Amino acid sequence: MSASVLRPLFVVAGCGNGSGTGATAARTFAKAGYSVALIARGADSLNALAQEIKTSGGSAAPIPVTGYGASDFTKAFAAIDEAFPSSEYVLRAALWNAGHAVFKPFLDTRVEELETTLQTNVVGAFAFSQEVVRKLKENEADPSTGRGTLIFTGATASVRGNLMTSAFASAKHGLRALSQSIAKEFNKDGIHVAHAIIDGGIQNTNYPGRELPTGLKPEAIAQAYLYLASQEKSAWTWELDLRPSEEKW
Amino acid sequence: MSASVLRPLFVVAGCGNGSGTGATAARTFAKAGYSVALIARGADSLNALAQEIKTSGGSAAPIPVTGYGASDFTKAFAAIDEAFPSSEYVLRAALWNAGHAVFKPFLDTRVEELETTLQTNVVGAFAFSQEVVRKLKENEADPSTGRGTLIFTGATASVRGNLMTSAFASAKHGLRALSQSIAKEFNKDGIHVAHAIIDGGIQNTNYPGRELPTGLKPEAIAQAYLYLASQEKSAWTWELDLRPSEEKW
Amino acid sequence: MSASVLRPLFVVAGCGNGSGTGATAARTFAKAGYSVALIARGADSLNALAQEIKTSGGSAAPIPVTGYGASDFTKAFAAIDEAFPSSEYVLRAALWNAGHAVFKPFLDTRVEELETTLQTNVVGAFAFSQEVVRKLKENEADPSTGRGTLIFTGATASVRGNLMTSAFASAKHGLRALSQSIAKEFNKDGIHVAHAIIDGGIQNTNYPGRELPTGLKPEAIAQAYLYLASQEKSAWTWELDLRPSEEKW
Amino acid sequence: MSASVLRPLFVVAGCGNGSGTGATAARTFAKAGYSVALIARGADSLNALAQEIKTSGGSAAPIPVTGYGASDFTKAFAAIDEAFPSSEYVLRAALWNAGHAVFKPFLDTRVEELETTLQTNVVGAFAFSQEVVRKLKENEADPSTGRGTLIFTGATASVRGNLMTSAFASAKHGLRALSQSIAKEFNKDGIHVAHAIIDGGIQNTNYPGRELPTGLKPEAIAQAYLYLASQEKSAWTWELDLRPSEEKW
Repeated sequence: MSASVLRPLFVVAGCGNGSGTGATAARTFAKAGYSVALIARGADSLNALAQEIKTSGGSAAPIPVTGYGASDFTKAFAAIDEAFPSSEYVLRAALWNAGHAVFKPFLDTRVEELETTLQTNVVGAFAFSQEVVRKLKENEADPSTGRGTLIFTGATASVRGNLMTSAFASAKHGLRALSQSIAKEFNKDGIHVAHAIIDGGIQNTNYPGRELPTGLKPEAIAQAYLYLASQEKSAWTWELDLRPSEEKW
Repeated sequence: MSASVLRPLFVVAGCGNGSGTGATAARTFAKAGYSVALIARGADSLNALAQEIKTSGGSAAPIPVTGYGASDFTKAFAAIDEAFPSSEYVLRAALWNAGHAVFKPFLDTRVEELETTLQTNVVGAFAFSQEVVRKLKENEADPSTGRGTLIFTGATASVRGNLMTSAFASAKHGLRALSQSIAKEFNKDGIHVAHAIIDGGIQNTNYPGRELPTGLKPEAIAQAYLYLASQEKSAWTWELDLRPSEEKW
Repeated sequence: MSASVLRPLFVVAGCGNGSGTGATAARTFAKAGYSVALIARGADSLNALAQEIKTSGGSAAPIPVTGYGASDFTKAFAAIDEAFPSSEYVLRAALWNAGHAVFKPFLDTRVEELETTLQTNVVGAFAFSQEVVRKLKENEADPSTGRGTLIFTGATASVRGNLMTSAFASAKHGLRALSQSIAKEFNKDGIHVAHAIIDGGIQNTNYPGRELPTGLKPEAIAQAYLYLASQEKSAWTWELDLRPSEEKW
Repeated sequence: MSASVLRPLFVVAGCGNGSGTGATAARTFAKAGYSVALIARGADSLNALAQEIKTSGGSAAPIPVTGYGASDFTKAFAAIDEAFPSSEYVLRAALWNAGHAVFKPFLDTRVEELETTLQTNVVGAFAFSQEVVRKLKENEADPSTGRGTLIFTGATASVRGNLMTSAFASAKHGLRALSQSIAKEFNKDGIHVAHAIIDGGIQNTNYPGRELPTGLKPEAIAQAYLYLASQEKSAWTWELDLRPSEEKW
C-alpha cells in the first residue's frame, strides 16, 4: 500500500476526563479523517472516549499508561503500532496535552510538588516527543505539509512567571523551550512543531467550577490544532497565542 | 436586509504588483466568498487584479490611493462605501500589508528614509486602522467570530533589530505595538486583531530576484490570514509566526 | 594631549524641568567626573541646571535646541564641539531621554499626535544617535570600557502595547528596535549601547501630581546609567529593567 | 548587636573549580566587605578558595554539599548558621550559579540526562531559594536596598531553545520562570531577585579549552552582581543581559 493511501493517525497524550482540550482535539481530528490514538492515565475515560468516537463513525484506540516516564511511552507507542499497523496508518499529528499543575505560594510549594510538575510536564513531554519524532522521521513526506506535526499545549505560565506559579511556570517554560529546540532541529527534515499559548481558562463542562462563561472553548482550541496540522510547509507556525475575546491582557 | 444576508467584505491595504501577499490574500478571500476592496498606490496593477478576481467569479473593486496619510484613507473608505454599500455588504476582515522597507547600515540611512519608513508603516497603518475599527464597531456581531478581524503583516524586524534594519525594525516594532494596543482595547468589543510575523523571505514570481526556492509562499500566508478571520471568539490569536521549514532560526 | 588625560564628556538629550531622569543623570555623571553637555528645549531650565552643576564644582554647558530634527542635532553637536573642544574632551557617554508621550484611547488619538510622538521619540533619537556614534567611532578605545556608551531611556510601553498607548507604545517599541540595531552593528567597534526599561512611574518633585510615593527615584535610575557606562567590554548589557520594589508586574 | 553593625553575608551555590563565575563573585563580594559562604560539591576546591579569600583579608567558610536536593540545602544552611551566627551576620546577597549542562542532539539525549539537568538547575535552585527567601524575610530591611538580593545566573538557553539544547534550555527556561515568580511574589517584601542572561562563553583559565579570547570575564560578571546587590529599592532590575562586545547576536 503506497504512502498516499495510508490513513493519517493522530496521537494525543492527555485526554483528561473526556471533556477538555485533548479529548476535544481527538474528536475534531477524527471528524477530519484521522484515526486517533488516545493516551492517558485512567482507562475508563479513555474507553468511553474511544467508544464515542467509533460510534460517530471514527477510528480510535485507547492507549492507557500508568505514568509519564520514558518506559511508559515506549510501551504506549508499541501498543499504538499494534493498534494502527504501519502498513495501513501513518502518524501525521501528535499532541502533548498532559502535565500536572500546582498553584501555591512559593514557600508553601514542596520540592516534591515541583518534581512531579517537572516530571509530568517536561520529562513526560520529552519522552513522548522522542517517540513521535522517531516515528515522523520514517514517514514519507507529504509535498505540501511535510512528514507531520507535533503540537504542545502551553499556557500563560509558559511565558510569564507569577505569584502562585513558581513550580508550574518553571515546568511550562521548560516545555516551551523543549518545543522550540525540537522545532529548530527538525523543521528542515519536514517535521512541524508548534506551541500554543492558551492564555486564559478553558471551559470544561465536566470539571465542577470550570464552566467558565468566558473561557476558551475546547472546540476552538482544537480547530487551531487542526489548522496547524494542515499548514503548508513554506509557512509553518511555531507559536501562537489563543485568548478569549473578553480576556484582559 | 438583515445582517445575516449581508455579503462579507475584505479590505486589503497594500496589493503591490499583484503577486505578493496582499494580492494573494485578496484572491484567497474572494474564493472564500468575500467581496474584496483593493487599496494600493498605482491604479494599473489594482485594475488588473480586480479584473482577474471578477473574471474568476469573485467580487472586487480597486481603490487607488495617492499616499498613506490620514486623508488618503478617509477618501479610500468613502470610495469603499460607494463600491460596497452598507445595505448589502459588511466589513468582516481587513489586512494591513503596506509599508516601505529600507535596509542600510545605520550611518548610511538618512533621516528622511526613516521618516518615510515610519510614515508608510506606522502612520499609514494607524490611519487605516482607525477607519477599520470605526467601521467594525458598527457591525452586528457574529455569535461565533465577532464583528470582524484586522490583520497586520509583520516581519522578522517586528521582533528583532539588526545590522541593516535600524529604520525598518523601528517601524515594524512600532506597527506591532500598534496592533497589540488595538487588540487589547477592542477585543472585548468583538473586534479581533492579529499580527503575523513573517519570518523569512516571501516567494514572489513577479519580482526578479525574489523567486526564492525556499521562501514563504503567498498562498500559505493567505491561508493563515483566512484561518485567523475564521477563529471563534473564545480563542483568538493575536500573534503567530510563519516560517519556511528550511529557515534556520 | 594624549587620550588618557582627556576629560570624559557626557551628553544628555532631554533634561526636562531639571528634576527628572535626564537632569539627575547629568548631576550624577558630573559628580563622577564627567563634563556634561545638556540638550533640551527651553533655555531657562538648562541654564539653571548648568549653573547648579558648576556651582557644585562640576563642568557643564547648556545646549538649547529648538526641535528634535536632524539639523537641530547637527547644530547641537557643533555647539558641543565648541564648548568641549576635542583637544581636551572625549565623549564617553550619551543619554537619549527625550520624547513626547500621549495617553489616549485609540480612536481619540489624532494622526498628528502619533506623528509628533514618532518624531520626538524615534526620529529625534535616530538623529541624535547618528551624531553620537560618529563621534564615538573617532574615540581612542579604553582597554576596559571601549569607546563609549549610548543609553536610551525606555518604558513599560517599550515592550507592551496597551489600552491608552497606541501612539506612545509604537514610538517606544521603535526606539527599542533602534537601540538594538545600533548595538548589534557597533558593539564590535567598541561602542556600548544600552536600553533601560523604566517599568513604573518616576518620582519627580517638580511635576505637580508626580510626587509618587512608590515610583522610581531619578537618582536610582542615574546610578544604573553610571553603572552601564562603566561596564567592562567583555560583559556589556544591552537591556535591563528598572522597577520599584512595590510595583505589581 | 543592632542590625546596622551586623556583617553582611553573601552565599554562593556553585563555586566550580575556583576560577569561574561563582568563585570570582565570592572574591569580589569579599573584597567589597561581605563575608562569604561557599557552597559546592567537592570540598577540596572549596577549602582552597576559602583559604585564598581569608589570606587576602576576607572572611569565608566552605560549605560542601553532596548533592542539590532539598535536604542538602537544609543542611547547608544549618552549617552556614553555625559558621556565621545571626548575632553577628546578616544574609544580604545570594547567588545561584550551579547546574549541570548537556549539549546533545535531541534524539541522542537520554531521559536521565534531562532529569539530571532539571534536578541540578531547577530543583536545586528551588530548594536553595526557599532557604534564602526564608532567611531574607527575617532580615531587618535596609532603608535603601531592602532585605537582600537573590541572583540567578542564566544563559542564552534561558531565552532561546536551540539545536543542541533541548534539555539544557528546558532547565534554564525553568530557572528563569522560577526567578520571575519569586521576584513578583517577594519584591514588595523588600527582597530583590535578579536574573542575569550570560549571553556568551565565559573565560575560565582553569578549564582547558575555555580560555576564550573573546568570552565574558568572570570579574565583569561579578561586578554586575555586586551592582545588582547594591541597587536602591525604587529601581530594581529583575533581568539584564551580559554579552561580550565581540559577540554576534
